[in-house]
Amino acid sequence: MMASTALCRSAAVISKPKRFLPNGVMKMMSATHWLNNNRNTRTATTDTRAKTGILMLNMGGPSTLPEVGDFLKNLFMDRDIIQLPFQSVLGPYIAKRRTPDIQEKYGQIGGGSPILKWTRKQGDMMCAVLDKICPESAPHKAYVGFRYANPLTEITLEQMEKDNLERAIAFTQYPHYSCTTTGSSMNAIYKYYAERNITTKLNWSVIDRWGTHPLLVDAFVHLIEKELESIDPEIRDQVIILFSAHSLPLRTVNRGDPYPAEVGATVQLIMSKLNHANPYRLVWQSKVGPLPWLEPATDKAIESYIKSGKKHFILVPIAFTSDHIETLHELDIEYGEDLAKKLGVETYRRLPALNDHPIFIEALADLVSNHLKKGPRVTGQLLSRCPMCVNETCGKCKNWFSTMCK
Amino acid sequence: MMASTALCRSAAVISKPKRFLPNGVMKMMSATHWLNNNRNTRTATTDTRAKTGILMLNMGGPSTLPEVGDFLKNLFMDRDIIQLPFQSVLGPYIAKRRTPDIQEKYGQIGGGSPILKWTRKQGDMMCAVLDKICPESAPHKAYVGFRYANPLTEITLEQMEKDNLERAIAFTQYPHYSCTTTGSSMNAIYKYYAERNITTKLNWSVIDRWGTHPLLVDAFVHLIEKELESIDPEIRDQVIILFSAHSLPLRTVNRGDPYPAEVGATVQLIMSKLNHANPYRLVWQSKVGPLPWLEPATDKAIESYIKSGKKHFILVPIAFTSDHIETLHELDIEYGEDLAKKLGVETYRRLPALNDHPIFIEALADLVSNHLKKGPRVTGQLLSRCPMCVNETCGKCKNWFSTMCK
Repeated sequence: MMASTALCRSAAVISKPKRFLPNGVMKMMSATHWLNNNRNTRTATTDTRAKTGILMLNMGGPSTLPEVGDFLKNLFMDRDIIQLPFQSVLGPYIAKRRTPDIQEKYGQIGGGSPILKWTRKQGDMMCAVLDKICPESAPHKAYVGFRYANPLTEITLEQMEKDNLERAIAFTQYPHYSCTTTGSSMNAIYKYYAERNITTKLNWSVIDRWGTHPLLVDAFVHLIEKELESIDPEIRDQVIILFSAHSLPLRTVNRGDPYPAEVGATVQLIMSKLNHANPYRLVWQSKVGPLPWLEPATDKAIESYIKSGKKHFILVPIAFTSDHIETLHELDIEYGEDLAKKLGVETYRRLPALNDHPIFIEALADLVSNHLKKGPRVTGQLLSRCPMCVNETCGKCKNWFSTMCK
Repeated sequence: MMASTALCRSAAVISKPKRFLPNGVMKMMSATHWLNNNRNTRTATTDTRAKTGILMLNMGGPSTLPEVGDFLKNLFMDRDIIQLPFQSVLGPYIAKRRTPDIQEKYGQIGGGSPILKWTRKQGDMMCAVLDKICPESAPHKAYVGFRYANPLTEITLEQMEKDNLERAIAFTQYPHYSCTTTGSSMNAIYKYYAERNITTKLNWSVIDRWGTHPLLVDAFVHLIEKELESIDPEIRDQVIILFSAHSLPLRTVNRGDPYPAEVGATVQLIMSKLNHANPYRLVWQSKVGPLPWLEPATDKAIESYIKSGKKHFILVPIAFTSDHIETLHELDIEYGEDLAKKLGVETYRRLPALNDHPIFIEALADLVSNHLKKGPRVTGQLLSRCPMCVNETCGKCKNWFSTMCK
């Protein structure tokens, strides 16, 4: 609450010249207004009792339709994820042009992304477990830090700095590391301090990737088994499990981004546990633009399977941990309704996202508990840049974490 | 030596009519002559005592310099791995043109590929363990079936059919499935029976992928830990572990070939066990031709790391299980000597291949033992084609295994 009041004041001061301000300030402003209207949430409340703060990092999504524009602008301005010529002009221009379309999509899934609701719930449930199994670091408090939507990482960091925490854990909510997701969040943390020339008071450590965690795998296995059981035994063996992950430009992959290998690991572990009984493939969704991205594409794979007489599918959103527009719109509506009908798909099931699945919550708690008890505070892997990295911020960010997590 | 003398002789016998014979017959001929002169090996001996036959499948490599030509010809004629226009003419032409270069490389690593020696040793050691832990299916006998070198799969199948086995297991020696390796071996088994119109007397089952097996992972972990321990503690943390796997054309990957995801899984499991302590990347070697393949390339990654001041590397051959030309020549000589010297690499270690590592032998035995005891006889995954598969043989092959492994 303290933070929101404080930010309210600063927002009032800078409200008029908004369109002439640099993007960082604009981000802060819209976040301030948002915070101001969300006083009752755990994240926005100063809780001086918390000893360990866990920052749940994610790209995020707009909770309401009016937030779509800012979300897209923040996204298209982030050079960690997209590199455009004249980005400060072209980024907002593309964002503005895309806003109505994306707003329409969010409208079709209930008027906004549920990712904040889920991240909060996941964090709170995880902390309840942690308070029991890790009394020495309790009370634990989950903070949400989104990259492009409210609550923005920068605002949450300000709050965390005020909360007199003994430990702060930057915990990516992407099980699989990509420079475009977790990497961008890490850079945002570094830049928050660097741009303000502030030394953090917090005692940081990082959980940067966890795609092989046995309980993450178990949660997927459990959901897939349940889904298979609900399918007519006559066709059950014919069901093809399509693990669908957000695609990535090959330009990023070819620089050494570890994402496809890490997603592959989760898929293999799940299917090893299922004894490779059903056929499966890892496919990639949500490609944008004309350049080559990871393939095969989810929709093209379904189309090809249909041509070869396969008609039964379970779609598994493998790289996100809660529902978001790529599950609720792309998988459920664009492929599950429109494409499936057009192609004559007979069975189309989309596996529920992990959301508040009890095994998944256990996974989150176990990850943090192990991290607190055994470390490492930061992995050698997080501190290393991709072999062909061209982003100078990555190098500075890694130096910063190397010092802060000693 | 025996083999090379034998091949010399067989070359003399068949040298005249060779070019008028279809490739399949040529393969059979040179393989028959080779077998004829290798009676003392376990594989070539009829062993009526064996109850369970385990066919160790691999692409293979020429054991002697005179075998290089045939090896390359078989390779360039295989449409499962390379699709060329006018393949029956162009394949042998390219093979012939490349032979002197490849012979020179084999010359530099001792005059031939050690892969047959290692596969035999691995098979014999595995069977010794199996005879102890699986008395009910003993005696076990390992057979070697190479795709392009002696002993050719077709010749070994002929032998297995004669051996009155109760069970026959097609056991790929590639932990990670690719249509271009394991897939090609599976197609070769199917084609052996289909082209001769023979019904197999054998009771078949298949081990088609095993990149997540805990003992495979442990063997790598053990070797990496040992290698790291032998490096000066002052620089140990700076060592970058480069997992290097044979690259694959994107055209194959984009059809849905599961290879990159499966290799990624082994890498992630190894590094999870090592707590992601050292930085690492999965990189790809041995690209041929101008089309796009999986990247980043091993040599380019080293070059880029050097530019950013990194000078210490361990190279881990992750996708083969024994030494072969890609470890002994490409990693050891081309990169380890020539490139490392040129770039100023300070530490260049190449992890020993698994070869006869005791944990790896345990892994092989455990895989077969579990397969015999729990199955499945064939996975749903092996029986499914890639979504964008264009190879009709794959479809027929999968139908054949589906029937044979019931």
